Amino acid sequence: MAADRPRIATLLADAPVGSAVDVSGWVRTRRDSKNGFSFVELNDGSCMSNLQVVVDASVPGYEETIREVHTGASVRVTGELKESPGAKQRVEMHAATLELIGGADSETYPLQKKRHSFEFLREIAHLRPRTNTFGAIARVRNALCWSIHNFFQQRGFLYVHTPIITTSDCEGAGEMFTVTTLLGHDGEAGSAEKGSQDDPDFEHDFFGKRAALTVSGQLEAEIYATSLGPCYTFGPTFRAENSNTTRHLAEFWMVEPEMPFCELTDNMQLAEDFIKTTIGDVLERCREDMEFFNLRIDKTILATLDHILQNEFRRVSYTEAVEVLTSVDREWDYPVEWGHNLQAEHERYLTEEHFRQPIIVYDYPRSIKPFYMYCNEDGKTVRAMDVLVPGVGEIIGGSQREDRLDVLETRMAECDLDPEEYWWYLDLRRFGSVPHSGFGLGLERMLLLLTGMQNIRDVIPFPRTPRSADF
Amino acid sequence: MAADRPRIATLLADAPVGSAVDVSGWVRTRRDSKNGFSFVELNDGSCMSNLQVVVDASVPGYEETIREVHTGASVRVTGELKESPGAKQRVEMHAATLELIGGADSETYPLQKKRHSFEFLREIAHLRPRTNTFGAIARVRNALCWSIHNFFQQRGFLYVHTPIITTSDCEGAGEMFTVTTLLGHDGEAGSAEKGSQDDPDFEHDFFGKRAALTVSGQLEAEIYATSLGPCYTFGPTFRAENSNTTRHLAEFWMVEPEMPFCELTDNMQLAEDFIKTTIGDVLERCREDMEFFNLRIDKTILATLDHILQNEFRRVSYTEAVEVLTSVDREWDYPVEWGHNLQAEHERYLTEEHFRQPIIVYDYPRSIKPFYMYCNEDGKTVRAMDVLVPGVGEIIGGSQREDRLDVLETRMAECDLDPEEYWWYLDLRRFGSVPHSGFGLGLERMLLLLTGMQNIRDVIPFPRTPRSADF
Repeated sequence: MAADRPRIATLLADAPVGSAVDVSGWVRTRRDSKNGFSFVELNDGSCMSNLQVVVDASVPGYEETIREVHTGASVRVTGELKESPGAKQRVEMHAATLELIGGADSETYPLQKKRHSFEFLREIAHLRPRTNTFGAIARVRNALCWSIHNFFQQRGFLYVHTPIITTSDCEGAGEMFTVTTLLGHDGEAGSAEKGSQDDPDFEHDFFGKRAALTVSGQLEAEIYATSLGPCYTFGPTFRAENSNTTRHLAEFWMVEPEMPFCELTDNMQLAEDFIKTTIGDVLERCREDMEFFNLRIDKTILATLDHILQNEFRRVSYTEAVEVLTSVDREWDYPVEWGHNLQAEHERYLTEEHFRQPIIVYDYPRSIKPFYMYCNEDGKTVRAMDVLVPGVGEIIGGSQREDRLDVLETRMAECDLDPEEYWWYLDLRRFGSVPHSGFGLGLERMLLLLTGMQNIRDVIPFPRTPRSADF
Repeated sequence: MAADRPRIATLLADAPVGSAVDVSGWVRTRRDSKNGFSFVELNDGSCMSNLQVVVDASVPGYEETIREVHTGASVRVTGELKESPGAKQRVEMHAATLELIGGADSETYPLQKKRHSFEFLREIAHLRPRTNTFGAIARVRNALCWSIHNFFQQRGFLYVHTPIITTSDCEGAGEMFTVTTLLGHDGEAGSAEKGSQDDPDFEHDFFGKRAALTVSGQLEAEIYATSLGPCYTFGPTFRAENSNTTRHLAEFWMVEPEMPFCELTDNMQLAEDFIKTTIGDVLERCREDMEFFNLRIDKTILATLDHILQNEFRRVSYTEAVEVLTSVDREWDYPVEWGHNLQAEHERYLTEEHFRQPIIVYDYPRSIKPFYMYCNEDGKTVRAMDVLVPGVGEIIGGSQREDRLDVLETRMAECDLDPEEYWWYLDLRRFGSVPHSGFGLGLERMLLLLTGMQNIRDVIPFPRTPRSADF
C-alpha cells in the first residue's frame, strides 16, 4: 500500500538527497517548459506543501502521458530526490517513471487554479478538501481531536459514549430533533396505529415513546463521574434551531468532561489547562497550516493564540462583570442589568477591551441558568462559569453541579420539571452523592478560534443547517 | 481537585509504604471488628481493586461516622499507607480522618453485596458502573477507543467526522431512522403545512427533504481518502431494525478507515494489524480487568485472544470457503451454496473448527454485495472481505471500492440506484480517481470478543433497542 511508503510531508522534511522515491498523489498544477520537460506540483494531503516533480523526455511515454496530467489528476511517480535549486524547498523530485492513475478533464473539473469563494466550495463539499484551505482545516481538526483525547487520557479520564438517541432533555428546554419510524414506511415498528402528525402516537414508535437527538451528554456523563471517576464525552450533538447564522450548526461535536470531588475553582483551572494545552499541541503539530491561516485568513490569529497561551485566565464574578459593563460609557444594543444574560457584545468587550486577556466569568444569577447548577448560599447565584477569549467570545460553559438532593428537588420545582422523569439523576444524589463539576466545549467554536475562519460551516466536513443536509 | 491527588490504582501499584494519602471514593463494603475498629473497602473507579482502609477509634468522630459508612456511600479519608498483612495486596491504609460525603441508605440502595443479574442491572444503568463487571467494561472500552485512535494517528490517518444526519443511504437499502421536526410542535420549521403522517411533506421539514440517521460514514470517508490520504471515522451509527437479539443495537459505534492507493490485499493486512494491535494494547493496559473477565465471565477469553495474537490471519476465498463447507459431513440450518451469504454457523465452523485460526474470506459473489465494491474480472465476484475470528465470528467487513466510473455506473443500474442521487460519489471517479479500500469494525462486537460478555447491551453504557431508550 502507498500508505506504507513515505508520504510527501516526510519526504520534504527528512528524506536524504539521493533517495529513491515512489510517491502517489494528486496534481495541483503542471507547467511545461519549452525545453521539453515539465514541472508537476504534487500533493498527497500529508501537508500543505506540494512536492515539485521534474518530468523530462527521458521518462518512458513522456509525450503521451504528460498531456493528460491536468490539475486534479492522480498520478504515481518514481524517481530520485535532488537538491532543489529554488529557495522555497529543500528537495525536489526527478521522475524516472510517471503513471497516470485517474485523469481530470480540464474543461469540467471544478477546481481550477483560480481562487474560489467559500460559498461556492460549500456546494462542492466533496471536492473542497482538495484545496489548501480545507486541507489545512482537516489537518488542524484532526490534530485538535487527538490533542483532546490525549489531554484527558493522560490525566486518567475515561472516555464515555453517552447516548445520541435520548428520551430526556438535558437543558430542560431546547429544540430537539425527533427520531422516529412513524413517518412513511421507514421501519417495521411504525406501520400500525400511529396517531396523526399533530398528535403522533409515540407508543407505537420504535422506542415506544418520543425519542430525540441529544443536546448534551452531561447528565449521563455524571453517572460515570459519580461511580468511576473523571470522565469525558466527545461526540455529535444536535440543535433543531432554525437559525441561519455563521455560528450555528444543527449538528456539531462537543467535548464534555465531568469530574467527581471537584468544585468550581478546580473546574476553572481544568478548563484553562485544557484550552492552553490543546492550542499548544495544534501550534506544534500543524505549524505550516497555522502559518497559512495567519497569512491568508486572519493576520492576527497567531498573535491571538500566543496571547491566550501567555496570559492567566482571569477570574471575574458575574456581578463584577456587570459593574464593569454598567460603569463604562458606551451604548449597548442590549442594556446591561444584573439578572440578565451577557450578550456577545458584552462578552467581547470584557475580554478584548477591558481585561484584554482570557477571562472566566462565574457565579451567574440563578434565574437564568439550568436546574442542575449548584446554588450558592446567597440564594441568588449558581456556580456557573463561562470562559471568554479574545477573538471569539464564549468558548466554554460549565458549572459545579448541584449534589444536594433537597436543593436539587427545589430547583427542579422552580424550573417546572417533573422529578419522576429525572428519577435516575436524583438517585445519583441519593446514593453516595459527591461534589462534582464539568464543562462543555464546542469543537467547531474552538476551530474558529484556531483558524480564524469566519463561518462555522467551513470548519466541519459536512455542515447541517436549516434546509441543508447534502452529502 | 481530588483528580490531582493519586488515585487508588496508583496507590496500590506505586506509592511507598509510609506515604501520607488523601483519598476519596465509594464504599464497597464495611466490616466491623469486635475490637473497636472497622475495615472499609474503598473504590474510586481507577481500577477494580479496592483500597482496604483500617479505621479505628482514634479517628475523630469514629463512632458516629462509621455507622453511616454503608455500601455505596462516598467518603474522604486521609491517613498513611502501611504494609498489608494480607497476601492479596501490597499496602493498606490506616485512617487518621474519615469524612462522610454522601450517605447511601442500606435499606433502599439497590446494589447490595449479593450478585445481581445483568438483566436487573440493565434496569439501573445509572448505577451499574458501580459494580466490578461494569467498571471493568468501562475501562476496557476506554482503553480500546484510545488504542484505536492511537493506531491510526501513528500511521498518519486523519480522523474525519462524517455526518450523523444524512440524506443519502450508504447500503442502498438499510432501515433508517427519520430525523424530523414535523411531528407535534418540536421545532419552528415544522409548524406550517406538513402533509400527513403517511405522506409527510418533507419539503416543509427542517432540512427541506427526508433526513435520516447514518448507517455508515464510508461514502463520505471516501471523499477525504481521495483528497487527503488515509483517514478514519469513529462515531455513532444507527439501524432501525426491529430485532431483539443479543447482537443488535439500534445505536452503536463504528470505526471505518479508508485508504487511497490501496487494494484488497493491503486492506486485509491493515485489518489484521489493527485487530492484533488493539487487542495487545487492551491486554497490556487492562491486565487486572481482563483477568477478571477470564475468571468470572468466560474462562477461555485470554486463551482466545492469545490465539488470535499468535496466528496469522489466513486468507481464504469465498469459493474455497464454500468448497470446505460443502465437502464436510454436517447438517446446516442454512444450506451452503455458491452465491448465497455465509451464515453465522458457517463462519463459526470455518474459523473455529476447520481452520482453527482467524481467517479473512474474500472475493464474494457480486450479487450479494453492495454496489460500491470493486468488480473482479471474472464478472462474478467483487473484492469484498470479512474477517472472522474464533469466539465471535465476523468482526470486520470491508472491500476495495469500485474506482472505475463506467463499471460503477453499470453496478448502480444493476442495483436500481439513481445515479443523480450519487452525483458527488461519481465525481470522485471522474476527477483523479484512485484505487482505494476500507473496512468497518463495530466497536461493541470487538468488546464482546475482548470481554466474553454475551449480550451486546452490556458493553455499551446506554443501550438503545426496540422499545428501549431509557437514561
